[in-house]
Amino acid sequence: MRNIKLTLAYDGTNYYGFQEQRGTGLVTIQEVLEQCLGRMAGRRVQVIGAGRTDSGVHARGQVVNFDAAGWPIPVERMPLAINGLLPRDIVVTDAQEVGEDFHARKSARSKTYCYSIWNNRIPSPFHRLYSSFLPVPLDDAAMSAACAYLMGEHDFKCFQAAGATVKTTVRTLYRAEVIRKGSLVQFVFNGDGFLYNMVRIMAGTLLQVGTGKIYPEAIKTILSSKQRALAGPTMSPQGLCLEFVEY
Amino acid sequence: MRNIKLTLAYDGTNYYGFQEQRGTGLVTIQEVLEQCLGRMAGRRVQVIGAGRTDSGVHARGQVVNFDAAGWPIPVERMPLAINGLLPRDIVVTDAQEVGEDFHARKSARSKTYCYSIWNNRIPSPFHRLYSSFLPVPLDDAAMSAACAYLMGEHDFKCFQAAGATVKTTVRTLYRAEVIRKGSLVQFVFNGDGFLYNMVRIMAGTLLQVGTGKIYPEAIKTILSSKQRALAGPTMSPQGLCLEFVEY
Repeated sequence: MRNIKLTLAYDGTNYYGFQEQRGTGLVTIQEVLEQCLGRMAGRRVQVIGAGRTDSGVHARGQVVNFDAAGWPIPVERMPLAINGLLPRDIVVTDAQEVGEDFHARKSARSKTYCYSIWNNRIPSPFHRLYSSFLPVPLDDAAMSAACAYLMGEHDFKCFQAAGATVKTTVRTLYRAEVIRKGSLVQFVFNGDGFLYNMVRIMAGTLLQVGTGKIYPEAIKTILSSKQRALAGPTMSPQGLCLEFVEY
Repeated sequence: MRNIKLTLAYDGTNYYGFQEQRGTGLVTIQEVLEQCLGRMAGRRVQVIGAGRTDSGVHARGQVVNFDAAGWPIPVERMPLAINGLLPRDIVVTDAQEVGEDFHARKSARSKTYCYSIWNNRIPSPFHRLYSSFLPVPLDDAAMSAACAYLMGEHDFKCFQAAGATVKTTVRTLYRAEVIRKGSLVQFVFNGDGFLYNMVRIMAGTLLQVGTGKIYPEAIKTILSSKQRALAGPTMSPQGLCLEFVEY
């Protein structure tokens, strides 16, 4: 086995998420990447992704690994070679040869996600595919205060999409932060793992704080309730980006 | 006449430029805007644009004017009302009632264009629609030096698309500047008028300076030659954006 770790950036606008959807005819990032690697290898190639991203969700630092046994191509040439075959909305930004035990999902120590909001009275045609649009004023300080309650080890069940099943809903958030760059507001979350729709629901809840619908302290109550219904709405996918996976 | 000045931002990716192309079936910004204003007015509305932008070219500050005689809607409500009907890649950012003699094209005193280059070994999926990709190193200082030769009043015939006809090719550039924000290199031009493809050809010529193909001083020779063949290539449209029109 020749285990290769690829870092990917992609604009998820035109894809039905990362994970392959066999037999559905829906185009996913994984399928496009596997087809491209398969053409290079002359055989079927399967990649393991660090995490699924939903339809319309983007990535600046998705990570996959795959077996390049028998490939004559040096690892440092791989990004250019693979990018030559990929569509322009999917880009390999880095390739590394890693140990046999490296597994893009199981070896991940933490992930960083960013949720972006275009916060201006007037929408932006250039941010429409990469953020949610919210024209009302936001209280950044209140949202930052709410972020403090999200950090640490908690049962995040209230921030999990209804119906999702998973062994444990306890996760640790190492970082939860509000960053404003002019009209662009970004929620940055770094944690050891994320439940299904967790970032999009946390973003929806922080925006309830930012618009004064709930107090920052309400985060404590929402967390301890473990009730999805008490948290905010699931924000739309195009504001979400998988920024970084740490190993 | 009730003369209304609208400022527009648009992502030009999905349009065949600003100007209507009657009978071609090609969708342009002007047509979409006029249809939308026509629906609001209940009659045919014609807009006058400050400048044409080509297929794939963007705008953050295009200006148009039109006659809103008989419209019951107050000018301050127009952006929201019009944006409610426009597709999300075209946005009215401002509306002002102006004097009868205001003409979006003829009254313009200067325009500012920006040409963006994604200058990194690795392309960016998020900048692909809004910049040209150039993976080789650029000499920013040399390009800045070249910009100094572009500024001022010159005959810019060498930077005009072959075959274009216009009364005079003398224009004044008030500002020509290179700005780098990380991997994003931007050429900013402010001038009293621009010839057809002038910004895209100046960008192509500056990149010849930046990659060491010609010296900054060559700009002087190219200008005085008035030969299109001596200037650089016409850069692709998606890097170009009409930023601002001054009146």
